[in-house]
Amino acid sequence: MAKKEQKKSRGTKGISVSKENDFSEWYTQVIQKADLADYSAVSGCMVIKPAAWAIWEKIRDQVDERIKKLGVQNVAFPIFIPESLLTKEAAHIEGFAPEVAWVTHAGNSKLSERLAIRPTSEAIMYDSYSKWIRSHNDLPLKYNQWSNVVRWEFKHPTPFFRTREFYFNEGHTCFATQKEAENEGEEIIAMYTDVCEKFLALPSFVGKKSEKEKFAGAVYSTSMEFMMDNGKAIQGPVFHHDGQNFSKAYDIKFQDVNGKESYVWQNTWAISTRMIGVMFAIHSDDKGLVLPPKLAATQVVIVPILFEDSKAEVLKKAREIQKNLEKKGISVYLDDRDNYNPGWKFNEWEMKGIPVRIELGPRDLEKHQVMVARRDTSEKQALEITAIADEVRILLDDIQKSLFDKAQKILDKSILKVDNLKDAKAAFKDKRIVIAPWCSAVECEDIFKEKTGAKSLNSPLEQPKLKKGQTCSFCKEEAKLWMHFGKSY
Amino acid sequence: MAKKEQKKSRGTKGISVSKENDFSEWYTQVIQKADLADYSAVSGCMVIKPAAWAIWEKIRDQVDERIKKLGVQNVAFPIFIPESLLTKEAAHIEGFAPEVAWVTHAGNSKLSERLAIRPTSEAIMYDSYSKWIRSHNDLPLKYNQWSNVVRWEFKHPTPFFRTREFYFNEGHTCFATQKEAENEGEEIIAMYTDVCEKFLALPSFVGKKSEKEKFAGAVYSTSMEFMMDNGKAIQGPVFHHDGQNFSKAYDIKFQDVNGKESYVWQNTWAISTRMIGVMFAIHSDDKGLVLPPKLAATQVVIVPILFEDSKAEVLKKAREIQKNLEKKGISVYLDDRDNYNPGWKFNEWEMKGIPVRIELGPRDLEKHQVMVARRDTSEKQALEITAIADEVRILLDDIQKSLFDKAQKILDKSILKVDNLKDAKAAFKDKRIVIAPWCSAVECEDIFKEKTGAKSLNSPLEQPKLKKGQTCSFCKEEAKLWMHFGKSY
Repeated sequence: MAKKEQKKSRGTKGISVSKENDFSEWYTQVIQKADLADYSAVSGCMVIKPAAWAIWEKIRDQVDERIKKLGVQNVAFPIFIPESLLTKEAAHIEGFAPEVAWVTHAGNSKLSERLAIRPTSEAIMYDSYSKWIRSHNDLPLKYNQWSNVVRWEFKHPTPFFRTREFYFNEGHTCFATQKEAENEGEEIIAMYTDVCEKFLALPSFVGKKSEKEKFAGAVYSTSMEFMMDNGKAIQGPVFHHDGQNFSKAYDIKFQDVNGKESYVWQNTWAISTRMIGVMFAIHSDDKGLVLPPKLAATQVVIVPILFEDSKAEVLKKAREIQKNLEKKGISVYLDDRDNYNPGWKFNEWEMKGIPVRIELGPRDLEKHQVMVARRDTSEKQALEITAIADEVRILLDDIQKSLFDKAQKILDKSILKVDNLKDAKAAFKDKRIVIAPWCSAVECEDIFKEKTGAKSLNSPLEQPKLKKGQTCSFCKEEAKLWMHFGKSY
Repeated sequence: MAKKEQKKSRGTKGISVSKENDFSEWYTQVIQKADLADYSAVSGCMVIKPAAWAIWEKIRDQVDERIKKLGVQNVAFPIFIPESLLTKEAAHIEGFAPEVAWVTHAGNSKLSERLAIRPTSEAIMYDSYSKWIRSHNDLPLKYNQWSNVVRWEFKHPTPFFRTREFYFNEGHTCFATQKEAENEGEEIIAMYTDVCEKFLALPSFVGKKSEKEKFAGAVYSTSMEFMMDNGKAIQGPVFHHDGQNFSKAYDIKFQDVNGKESYVWQNTWAISTRMIGVMFAIHSDDKGLVLPPKLAATQVVIVPILFEDSKAEVLKKAREIQKNLEKKGISVYLDDRDNYNPGWKFNEWEMKGIPVRIELGPRDLEKHQVMVARRDTSEKQALEITAIADEVRILLDDIQKSLFDKAQKILDKSILKVDNLKDAKAAFKDKRIVIAPWCSAVECEDIFKEKTGAKSLNSPLEQPKLKKGQTCSFCKEEAKLWMHFGKSY
């Protein structure tokens, strides 16, 4: 990490380091000073505060609306999983065992069997599925739940990115054929992409995870990866095709139209509260949080500049503007607090990421205008009061689009094509990630990770062609595919 | 319990006992056969299936919209509570300790301190509140969370009524003065009453719980109690005024306008998934589930009567009717499945509580009409196809109202005024509850419970006048108030 720099000029409320020089400390300060999360009495667990939880609710509603249109129904399974059930699928338990929190007692009684707090719900759900699914008439079965899960990581916690309890949707679907199951992958990734692009203003690169990095129990995992401007990639929403791995372990069988018994084909897919953190990290800057207007609980703050003799008049006009904006479906907070001066208020709302600020004083009134500042670029302009609602609507849409475009540029610039270890290392040093021809062997990835500290991210679904006889960029074996590699969270 | 009666004539899908003769078995069968919940691999925990979870989502959205208008913000605290934190408020831990599930291990490590799975979140939330609240400017603080909680009951589990994990909202609010805090009680009870009456179609009686029955840690609890036609009352939404009990235990202090330090005044309030069960139990009948139209995911089912020669024409008309209803905002399922006959379909949708069924065959088409059956009363009528959307809209509203009125009648008939033990006992035997002048002593309640199996429910907020010199109905002491008593869940 770079040396911490002090910006005392911003006052006690400001962020004391820059995003570029100390990303990690900068991120922590943004989260705390924008009042998004706080540490709790439980080590490794955070409190998600109202400003951040409201954003998660919006993401949840967007995803929920879309999956319901895909025929998915929500359900609620117990948070507990008996140990004997969790251990049925070998790869699954191997992946999760080190992180499981165990309930051993209730009241004063010792339980006859330990109960896991769900790290994910395959085991408890599929036990029920095996009772519920009998015939092809029961398929496809498409259930989802919005749940809290616990994975007892021992690494340093980071708000949203790595906490022992987090929140996600977990879709668990069953199909009669492999083809139907795999087709769902496209639907689900398209759905998550739509929400991430339109609401979180975040572009991603989609691809298949390596054998080493795929979900514990899956046949393959398709991930959406996001690029942060500290040069690290981070995994977002995922789709896992589980084939018949779980249906065989949990005995989920159905009779097809001809009366023949088969195991179902399964998928799981998820988006988690980690994505809120990704969004905060990518869009925000040295003044604090930057929020896409579509997810901001408050889109516009009006700060009246108040002097004794014109106070009533200015406040009256401010309320009028508020009403006009609200009529257009824009959410507005009029900051008429007496005990803070305008400068203090400007800093506070910049820190909290309100997309648009309207300033309004007696001199503006004389000119029938207001000053409008956008949070993302800090640009200010004078706007006619009569046209304000339409202009702000356009401005909000423009901010939403600009944030996406800016993130897309960072992503595009970040991916470098390489075919050897030296160039890959140089790219990582330069805060970039690489795409390289690769043999896809687990041993090669292990050695690569040891040498670079980076790992495989995903392999594009549409593969560029490999040259004939192309060897792996990192060992002497034959290259099988193009794979993204990079430092990552 | 009454002897089980067999109604084989209803076929394997029917309910085999009557609500009147064996309420408990009837309820269990309704829940399972209407596909609302299922047992899980975890003893005492249930799976809430999509049909029931969709109803909980609607209730959640109704409550959520209303509390946000009251200025409440949602938040998410960890599910874990360190043992040392949980034990800070003496009455609170005494109330919950016997039911706490304890996490003792994570992965292969033993934790240095046991963690409770939240039975409710006072302890973990108020620890943070004590850090966040400093000044009168931070008040009122009105936070809520929608959470899963665990109370390890050892009694026989009943779906929705008594399960070891359940779901609720928990509002946790702080005020500068006792008056403001207590005023919130009216707002909150009015809000829950509105949702229960308008959406769940359930009337209640509101009042204060006795000292014995109040929430562990509260100064007093105000409850909404509901009456089931098995003669048992059941507690629904509650509002607890906690005074300064928790703020003193968890050190939540603020500086008032004069710089004086005081402890905050607190409330908590909740509605839980138990209410779904109450609603199912009160409205349903021997044919299965009955649902208020406003909470039914599907409000109307169209069952076409199909013969080979008129199939295309009947289905075409059925789809037309479906579209017309949907245009009016009515949710419709067209049951065009080939592999079930109309009679089987009628039974299935009656079991699942769809409020309105439309039957449509070739002879109906000739007469430009359809047969419309309402689930609650089983009444059938022929309706002109041209007027169908408006008529069904009226019918749905009428069903919603009828269900409430019917429940109100049961409630009104159930409450008997008494002033002695003999009459109270007779009332309980007659599946009623009583209101009686009472001394309000815990010992009197203990003896009463031993003699009758009944307990105090609540004491009306607006008290009828007590006669001068009125003695307690159950002991020789002076009567202090009117209290409801009854058998209860």
